[in-house]
Amino acid sequence: MARLITLVEDESEHLRQVSAALAPLVGRAHVIGLTGSPGVGKSTTTSALVTEFRARGRRVGVLAVDPTSPFSGGALLGDRIRMQEHATDPDVFIRSMASRGHLGGLSWATPQAIRVLDAAGCDVVLLETVGVGQSEVEVAGLADTTVVLLAPGMGDGIQAAKAGILEIGDVFCVNKADRDGATTTRRELRTMLSMSSREDGWKPPIDLTVASEGRGIAELVDDLEAHARHLRQTGQLERRRTARLRREIQSIALDQVRRRFVLDGGEELDELAARAQAGEIDPFAAADELLRRASDT
Amino acid sequence: MARLITLVEDESEHLRQVSAALAPLVGRAHVIGLTGSPGVGKSTTTSALVTEFRARGRRVGVLAVDPTSPFSGGALLGDRIRMQEHATDPDVFIRSMASRGHLGGLSWATPQAIRVLDAAGCDVVLLETVGVGQSEVEVAGLADTTVVLLAPGMGDGIQAAKAGILEIGDVFCVNKADRDGATTTRRELRTMLSMSSREDGWKPPIDLTVASEGRGIAELVDDLEAHARHLRQTGQLERRRTARLRREIQSIALDQVRRRFVLDGGEELDELAARAQAGEIDPFAAADELLRRASDT
Repeated sequence: MARLITLVEDESEHLRQVSAALAPLVGRAHVIGLTGSPGVGKSTTTSALVTEFRARGRRVGVLAVDPTSPFSGGALLGDRIRMQEHATDPDVFIRSMASRGHLGGLSWATPQAIRVLDAAGCDVVLLETVGVGQSEVEVAGLADTTVVLLAPGMGDGIQAAKAGILEIGDVFCVNKADRDGATTTRRELRTMLSMSSREDGWKPPIDLTVASEGRGIAELVDDLEAHARHLRQTGQLERRRTARLRREIQSIALDQVRRRFVLDGGEELDELAARAQAGEIDPFAAADELLRRASDT
Repeated sequence: MARLITLVEDESEHLRQVSAALAPLVGRAHVIGLTGSPGVGKSTTTSALVTEFRARGRRVGVLAVDPTSPFSGGALLGDRIRMQEHATDPDVFIRSMASRGHLGGLSWATPQAIRVLDAAGCDVVLLETVGVGQSEVEVAGLADTTVVLLAPGMGDGIQAAKAGILEIGDVFCVNKADRDGATTTRRELRTMLSMSSREDGWKPPIDLTVASEGRGIAELVDDLEAHARHLRQTGQLERRRTARLRREIQSIALDQVRRRFVLDGGEELDELAARAQAGEIDPFAAADELLRRASDT
């Protein structure tokens, strides 16, 4: 698995071969995205979730995505204390992905890495972003179920509304619930959620957890599994995944064109520019011609 | 001319027809970009340049580009006092372009509008950006000759070095030269220019002007015309313009693909996503297929 993920992470030629080989094997895993501001306990919660899923006999994959990291290539998260307890479990696969995409967001490799874990028989793939900003929302776009983590007293209620996080959360989790203000945060959140309307018939639950002690984690997993059932029973799982593939195909196609014209497309483009310069062709007709040639070969 | 520019500005179907019709007619005008921080007197200098070019019998077009403006469609700059004196001159055409491109920069329409003015017989097209940021550099990318304007005592010397403005300036102009520090600014600039090496054999002159009184403007125009001669004599004019057309064709082609896949490409993409969802095809093969189909039609 590690080698396959490295292959897809390098965006090498192997990426395509791996992708083609995996196509018939994927679609079984429940992909769960964890998102939330720094300091809410994403990594601790992820680790507690691994423990609970393992207790239920599930095989678990963890992808920690950090698009803000300058390091490419993945490393085992052995240095992250919370994860160490799972390091020797053969049914837990943990991987960090540091590589960035061309356009500043998540790499192409992220959906491919999810596929590798899925095809390898993981029942659950936990996708945790350790970055900030738009990657949070992008992670949600790759998940079947998105958990939005909050912590009491961080003004997260208002932040959530701002960041559009209410819309992406399927399950909310107020972590560090032993701190003051946990129930207030839950109440505020409930009020906000009651004002926004969802069309999918799912009422996002709000769990209280103390992930460092494992408290509330069983209930959180119950809710995650309930959401997975809801997605399957209503046909939404397939629709969500098709929409996700649609976006992925789109971005691969666009990127391919971009590479072709911007990085490779030297000579053809030179010739067309010279003809445009001579007044024989206008730039729009030249662009058409370029597209025609690019697709012929 | 106004109607043609409106046509190209709307990015309508007419854009292509206009572009095709203009192709054999363009390439005569000397396109001069004016760039510089707010407050250096770009608009005043542009107006003074119009006066001087007219005195030399040249037909002049002025495009004032403001990509930060939310208004689309062009308007005569009758409200800009400095330009009013030219409003009744039939050999001066002044146009503001407020429209923005898809990616936040200059619109496609800008090079087309330059072509309209060129084809209509303008000897000189002055391209002034009233926006800020990257549009400054983009304007330079559209011009044969780029004038970088500075003013004394604005710390512009250092700013210029930072913004990469030393590289894009063919002619430098310290405006408001009646203020303290004009010669200091020129000296600093000269030192910085002497440290950066140009490979085109052109030594950028530094003019001192008081544009509001027309002082130094004749010398500035002399330098602009000298640069135009230098470009023609060394063959650089053609090379610069070919490189510019190359970029333009590239961006039109990319944008076309983007529109096709992202805005229109509905059904084909839906079908491919559904097949990927069923495991019949992987996303990379689906992207290939999408590109193939897009180019067949």
